[in-house]
This record gives sequence, C-alpha cells and structure tokens, in this order.
Amino acid sequence: MKKIEIFDSTLRDGTQCEGISFSVSDKLSIAEALDRFGVDYIEAGNPYSNPKDAEFFEKAAKRRFTTAKLAAFGSTVRKDTEPADDEGLRALLAAGTKYTVVFGKAWDLHVDCILGTTLAENLAMISKTIEFLRRNGRTVFFDAEHFFDGYKAHPEYALDVVKTAEKAGASTIVLCDTNGGCFPDEISKTVKAVSKVIKTPLGIHCHNDTGCAAANTVAAVKAGACHVQGTFPGIGERCGNADLCTVIPDLQLKLGYNIVSPERLASLTKTALYISEVANIRLPANLPYVGRAAFAHKGGMHADGVAKEPRTYEHIDPALVGASRRLPVSEVSGRSSVLTRVQALDGSLTKDSSETRLITEKLKELEHAGFQFEAAEASFELLAMKELGKFTPHFEIDHYRIISSMDSIDGTTYTEKANAIVKVKVGDKYEITADEGEGPVNAIDKALRKALEVFYPELRKMHLSDFKVRVVTSNDSTAAITRVLIESTDGESTWTTMGASRDIINASVLALTDSLEYMLRNR
Amino acid sequence: MKKIEIFDSTLRDGTQCEGISFSVSDKLSIAEALDRFGVDYIEAGNPYSNPKDAEFFEKAAKRRFTTAKLAAFGSTVRKDTEPADDEGLRALLAAGTKYTVVFGKAWDLHVDCILGTTLAENLAMISKTIEFLRRNGRTVFFDAEHFFDGYKAHPEYALDVVKTAEKAGASTIVLCDTNGGCFPDEISKTVKAVSKVIKTPLGIHCHNDTGCAAANTVAAVKAGACHVQGTFPGIGERCGNADLCTVIPDLQLKLGYNIVSPERLASLTKTALYISEVANIRLPANLPYVGRAAFAHKGGMHADGVAKEPRTYEHIDPALVGASRRLPVSEVSGRSSVLTRVQALDGSLTKDSSETRLITEKLKELEHAGFQFEAAEASFELLAMKELGKFTPHFEIDHYRIISSMDSIDGTTYTEKANAIVKVKVGDKYEITADEGEGPVNAIDKALRKALEVFYPELRKMHLSDFKVRVVTSNDSTAAITRVLIESTDGESTWTTMGASRDIINASVLALTDSLEYMLRNR
Repeated sequence: MKKIEIFDSTLRDGTQCEGISFSVSDKLSIAEALDRFGVDYIEAGNPYSNPKDAEFFEKAAKRRFTTAKLAAFGSTVRKDTEPADDEGLRALLAAGTKYTVVFGKAWDLHVDCILGTTLAENLAMISKTIEFLRRNGRTVFFDAEHFFDGYKAHPEYALDVVKTAEKAGASTIVLCDTNGGCFPDEISKTVKAVSKVIKTPLGIHCHNDTGCAAANTVAAVKAGACHVQGTFPGIGERCGNADLCTVIPDLQLKLGYNIVSPERLASLTKTALYISEVANIRLPANLPYVGRAAFAHKGGMHADGVAKEPRTYEHIDPALVGASRRLPVSEVSGRSSVLTRVQALDGSLTKDSSETRLITEKLKELEHAGFQFEAAEASFELLAMKELGKFTPHFEIDHYRIISSMDSIDGTTYTEKANAIVKVKVGDKYEITADEGEGPVNAIDKALRKALEVFYPELRKMHLSDFKVRVVTSNDSTAAITRVLIESTDGESTWTTMGASRDIINASVLALTDSLEYMLRNR
Repeated sequence: MKKIEIFDSTLRDGTQCEGISFSVSDKLSIAEALDRFGVDYIEAGNPYSNPKDAEFFEKAAKRRFTTAKLAAFGSTVRKDTEPADDEGLRALLAAGTKYTVVFGKAWDLHVDCILGTTLAENLAMISKTIEFLRRNGRTVFFDAEHFFDGYKAHPEYALDVVKTAEKAGASTIVLCDTNGGCFPDEISKTVKAVSKVIKTPLGIHCHNDTGCAAANTVAAVKAGACHVQGTFPGIGERCGNADLCTVIPDLQLKLGYNIVSPERLASLTKTALYISEVANIRLPANLPYVGRAAFAHKGGMHADGVAKEPRTYEHIDPALVGASRRLPVSEVSGRSSVLTRVQALDGSLTKDSSETRLITEKLKELEHAGFQFEAAEASFELLAMKELGKFTPHFEIDHYRIISSMDSIDGTTYTEKANAIVKVKVGDKYEITADEGEGPVNAIDKALRKALEVFYPELRKMHLSDFKVRVVTSNDSTAAITRVLIESTDGESTWTTMGASRDIINASVLALTDSLEYMLRNR
C-alpha cells in the first residue's frame, strides 16, 4: 500500500502550546524517541526566533539518527530584502540541516494585513527564498500557510502561491489549515483541486479548532497527500495540531497505508507516554489508541462483551499499538473483571475460586467505604496480593505528627509551612525524621520519603506525576470521605494508587504508602 | 436553516467514562445546567441497572425544566420474555418519563455472540419492545447499536433492523458508531443509504476511538441526520462520545444549522466549565471552542496577527461561545464580563470605571494563583465588595493550630481525630476555643464555627451542603495548588464560595471564611 511520510513538529509547533517549554536536553530526548519510533522527519525548531533551537541543532548534528532526518523551520525572506542579507535565512542555513522548511503566505488577507505588501511581491519572496536555499544545497519543504482559508477566499491566488513554490523547486508542498477551521469534505475537495495543477508531492498540516484535525488529515491523505505533519500527542498552538498518535494508527491500521513496521507501531503507546513525560504533560486518559482508557471497558455489558468476543467493543486489537485492554474493577463490574487481574498474580485461580470470591467481596466492601479501584490498578494489585497472602510490607509507619498553623499580624495572615514528624520501621530498624512542606500532605510526603530513602535509595528515582483529590460524600461537608489518587513514575513506567478516608491526610498517606510499596516490589 | 435537535447523554453514556461517578445531586445540578443552556433532551440514566438513577428520576420529576425533556434509557426486552414481564422495561416505565430510549442490536455478530439468539428473534424483540412502550404512552427513540459496523458486515440485516424499528413506531432512529471506529466518508455514505429506505428522522451517536467523533457527527448531519447525541465535554466509554461543546458550535457557527439562540450559545464555555466542575474533571486546555487555550495565541506572530486583524488566526469570534482571546505573555482583560457582575453591586459603574479595571486586575491575579470564580459567585461578590471599599469583615482569625496524628500499635494503625485551636476577633473582643474532627479540615471548620457562634448565634442555622476539592496543578504532586469549593445553605438559600492555596487547610479556611461572611452579610 501507498507509503505515507510522517513529518513530526512536536519540537516546533508543539512548543507553541501554552505551558510547553522544552530545554535543549528535553528536545534531544524527544528527537531520539521519535527516531526510535520511526518518523521520517523531525522539524526541530526555528533557529532564528529561538536561540535555544540554534543550540539544539549544534548538539543534534553530533547524534546519529536512524530513520529520522532533522529539519529546521523559518519564514520566507522579508520584503525588500535579498535572501543573502536576511537574518532568518542565514540562521536557517547555519542550523546545518539538509532539510529546511519555509512557510509563506497563501491567503491574500495575510499578504495585505500582516506582510503589508503586494500579491506579486509575496510570490517573488516565496520564489527567491526557495531558490536561495536550493542554491545552498538544501532540500526545501514549502508550508503554504492558511492555504485552505486562502483557497476559499481567492482560489486563483492560492493556486498561484503553490505553483510558484513548485516552479522554484520545493520538494514537497504542504497545505496548512493554520486556523484549524476546516471540515474533512472541504479538505478533500481542495487537496484534489490542487493535485490537478501541481505535480510536486503534497503534504497536509492541520490544527484542531473544529475538533477535526485527525479527520481532516485522513481526508487529505485519501485525496492524495503523501506527507503528514502533526505532533505527539497533538500539542500545538491553541487547540493543538493533528495528533500523530491518532493519525498514524488511523492510516496504517484502519486504512492500510504503509507508515512504519508493525514492531515500531507496537511502541506507539510507550512513545506517547515517554514524550508526555518529558514534556511534563499528562497524556489524556481518553486519547484514541494511546490513552489509559482507550481500551477500558467500564459498562458491565461492554466488559462481558469483550470477554466473549473482543471485536464486539474494540475497533482494533490494542496490542497493535502496544496498549492493553483494561476492565476497570468497580462495584458494578463483578467477578469476571476481577478474575483477569488476579490471574496475572496466580494463574491457578478461576472465577469460582474462594480467593476470587474473597477479593471481590473485599473490593465491594472497600468501594462502599469510598475507595475506588478503577483508576488505581497498583492499589488493587496490592490489595489482591494481601488477600492471597503474598504481600510482605517493605516498611511500616510507626507514627506521624503534623502541625499546621496560621497567624494574623496587623490584619495580614501568614500561613506557615506545615511540619511533619514521621517514624518508620524497616525490618527491625527505625528511622525518625521531619520535614516541612506546602500544607500537611506535602509535609508528610516529604518526611516519609526522607525516612525511607535511608533504607531504599532507589526511591529517589521515583516521583509523583499526578495528584488528585475527590470528595466522595460531599454533603457530609468537611467530614466527607475524601479519596486521593496518586500517579507515580520512575521514568519508565507509571502506576496509580489510591487512599480514602474522612481525613485527607490519612487518605494521602494510604495512597503514598501503596505507591512506595508498589515501586519497591517491582524494582 | 435546518433545525438540529441536541440529545445530551452526559448523565448516561458520560457515566461510563472511567473515573466519573455522579451523585444524585450532581446529576440534578448538571441536568439544570443543560436545561439552562438549552439542549432538547437529557438522557439521564438507566433506571434498571443503576438504583441511583431511579432515585434521580423520582427527584427530577419535581423540578421544572424549560427547554429540555428528560429521557430514560434501557435495552430491548430479553429474549424469551414478554415485555410486561421484563424487569428492565418495567424499570424504564417506572422512571415516569414521557421519552424513552431503547437500544437494540444492528450487527449480526452481536446478535449471535452477545444475545445468543437468531436474527429473526432479535427483530421481534425490537419490535415488541417499541410497541409495548408506545402502548404505555411513551415516545420511543431507537438506538441502533453498532449500526455502522453492522452495515459494513451485512447491510441488508442492518437495514432490516431500522425498518423494524420504524414499523414499530420509533419516533427517531439513532445510528450508533458504538465502537468509534469509523471515518466521516463512511458515515456520510451510510447515513445517505439509510435515509433512502427510512422516513423516520435519523439521529447520530458517535464515539471517538479514531479521533473523528466530531467530524463523523458533522458528516452525518450534512448527510441528513437531524438529531445529534453527545456529552459535555465528550466524556464517555473508552475515548468518549462526540463532544457537544465542539459539535454544537461546529454546526451552528461554521455550517449555519439552527440549534440554540445566540445568547444561549454564548453561555457554552460557562456551561462546559460548570459541568466539568461538578464532574470533578479538568476541562482540557486545548478543547476546541471552550478550552482555556482555544483562543490563546502564544506564538509571537500569531499574537501580533490577531491584534491587527482577528480573522488572521481565529476561525470564529470567541465571544460567540462566551470565550475570550488570550495572549499568554501579555494577558488582555475580560473587563466586560466583570462589568455585568459588578453593576449588580453599584449601578453607576461602567466598563471604563477605575473600579471595574481594578476588580478585573485583581481577578486576573487571583485566577493566575489558582482561584476560579466561575462556580463561586459568593466569593466573587465579596471580592468585588472589598475592591469597592464596601466590605467590613464580621470577624478576623487571629491564629489557628491544627495537629494531625497517626499511631501504629502492634501492626494496626490508628488515625486519631485531628485537633484544632482557633482564636477569633470580633470588634474588640476575642474568643479562643478548640474542637476535634475527622481530619484537619473538619476540625478547623468545627472550631471556627464554635468560636463565632458566641457572637453570631444565627450561624447555627447555616450548614455546609457540599464540599469539593480540586487539585489545580496536579503535576506539582503534593505541593499542588488545591481549590476548595463549599456550598452552604441556611435552609432558604444556598451560596458557593471558594479558596485556593498550596495548603489544603488554608484553601478550606478561605472558602469557609467567605461562606460565613456571606451568611452574616445577607442575614
């Protein structure tokens, strides 16, 4: 089947996502992960607008990438400037990549409002930019910015822009839905129209402002585009770019295009998790293919259905993208979903074993008391091990004391740092220590790890990546049962644990204890 | 332009989203918000499978909804059962709604694997279920489960299913992409094929497993569907359902369909925020239209562009959905939204009054620190009064001390009640007292009221009716900013207040203080 080229812009358009800021070493880590996964190109930054990007290109030149080629991004020459005198183009050459991307205006509104020049001059700028880069030995991808809006407003001018880029020698012409306002049928129609007047390979670059970035990208490929731009996992300006974690399996698994080997595709989930971790964002649970819940069947009928025949509620086999089916255990799910999980701990167990029954009972009892295991699989595993008599604790908390205080002086209030004292027991040794923190939970968290790291230095590798609090019985007001969910990571895997109590500190300590035990058991 | 009916399933399919669990009062709050926004139908639950849903329908029957009609959801009759003897159908009738939804199998794989019956018997089950409900005075929506997969596998049988539902008198036939595996062109082609053999109005129900739920829904409407199912904000089984926050503006603003009045559409962002708040989920920042970043322009060129001409980087005017443009580096204000609320306190204020400007500044500063006034109007009112110099506090907290402790004796852990000491000042009098509680927040809550009731005995009439905790910056782990929302009531009215801090006790005390002040001011 037709080969589709993947052009990743996580390190360029991805950095235009609010809240994202990559260090040079973050960028190198992500570029290496993208290369391992097998993308064709990595657009790694704009060396003119961002000095960090220039540093990246210098360092990246020394690394060896196996599948991916690096590309540097910049804009067409300024008006009334010769390319050789243009600082942006000089920075682009200085990045030293064989592949360069330049964007130019394809919408007359932009030529007028933003560039403040004539339509003819814009074409000349595009032409001389591409020719200049080619003369300097570069392969040039041309991003036709706002192509679809431009084509809607003045189709002839938009086509003139891409014809100009073709004539000047661009190797790929990328049609951009920069404002993300399009729908698949428009995209399809327009790509087909362009491919009638252009021989150069076409690319597609979509934003998600109508929630259609994935569908638009797929529609463009079906209409003839063979180069797909996007980011991991869809980060980018405003609502983000086309999410490559969605688009790649859509194209390869559902529509039969040829992108990466099956082995590489099976590392998609791991790659998405890794990049999110480096980017310090949480991979949304409901993300297609790679989210935690993408193959989670909560409804009882759905859980029963996939047990009988996976196709009944799964559109693909999760293993193809390195994901796995999950049957979140909850009071509604019953013994069959408990079974799949306990069998991983003891293969001899059946649906009717007394252990399965006991664990199901215990689960119901705890869920009734406010615990909720569906999002806390590590806590569930520990619970099951306890019930199976397979659990030996790595530590005990002998006691803790936490003091929180606030003072008002001359009408101004001062909340002081909370102080925690904790004493732990490991084997027959004790360790007592203290720490302070932003509030009581942070204080006990810090003190507890400080005490345990004396015995288990490997705990330093672990950190909490998410912390959630949910008031379960909220009309009991401040005496309500509170459930705390903690997601932890050691940089390679992540696990979620939980605690529930009328005392939020106690709930947090239960979740923390499970997290630490889980890490120590699996190290 | 053509009217499209919105059928919201947040309270039914939304609860199949991992991590979502609504109390009856959460469900009532969400139903009222959906009604204010103006959806046509609210699918509020499955009274047979969930006893909480039965309680909801009983309570909801006493409320008055203005635009929305409630619908109860259930399945077709069991095989070899008469409708009158079917517990599921009896529960559906007992819910007492005029509108009912039944789902039936449209994919032969499911008839065989899941129902374990014949294709003919499945048609008979559909037929007698719909007829039974109609004889009992119900309007019946028929959800043709897995319709698109069924149509791909055996088009004739899938069409037989919907023809059977039509003949039995279903008022709307909803084509479901239950596994979420479809693309817009398939959806479009299939909806057109169905509309050739069916006269009954067609609906569409999409899941997001290929990232195409919004595009698929739009494609179905363009192909003739006039009833759209989805959830706020896209929560549902696995990767979720079509997000109504995306689909509604896509259809109305971009494609000209008629859904709600412009005024109601302008409350979309507020509605999405409110529902997320009740559901205790964070509205993803990059969500089209309603996410915090949906109109945030981070790239320098983009920010400059929108300053010159908004259309250059905005596909719609954000005000149409009640959102506002943000330039994350140099934040632009939302003075006009503040204005409507401060004018209630001082009618002489205008958009350009220095007070309006000051309150807007203060608001931005606090929201930056994690406060969020959307769901806490009483706190906003107090804030505005402070800035207008109209606020005289009824009390001050001089200081507090809270001690939390846990002890382990012979391997059993004992979490003791938390102890709080608090000293308050009212006028020139002081009162110091102590109390104990279930955790530190409950302890300070009880001690604070005990001290204040000495001066204000009327506080005894007030109690907290709801208490919610949200971790705002969850990847700061236990040092995250926590937002506490408290709903209070004096038996006649209710009000909501809020506090935010890295220290959960401090956040709770801020919310409590506001609640007590609000009560004392309005007594």
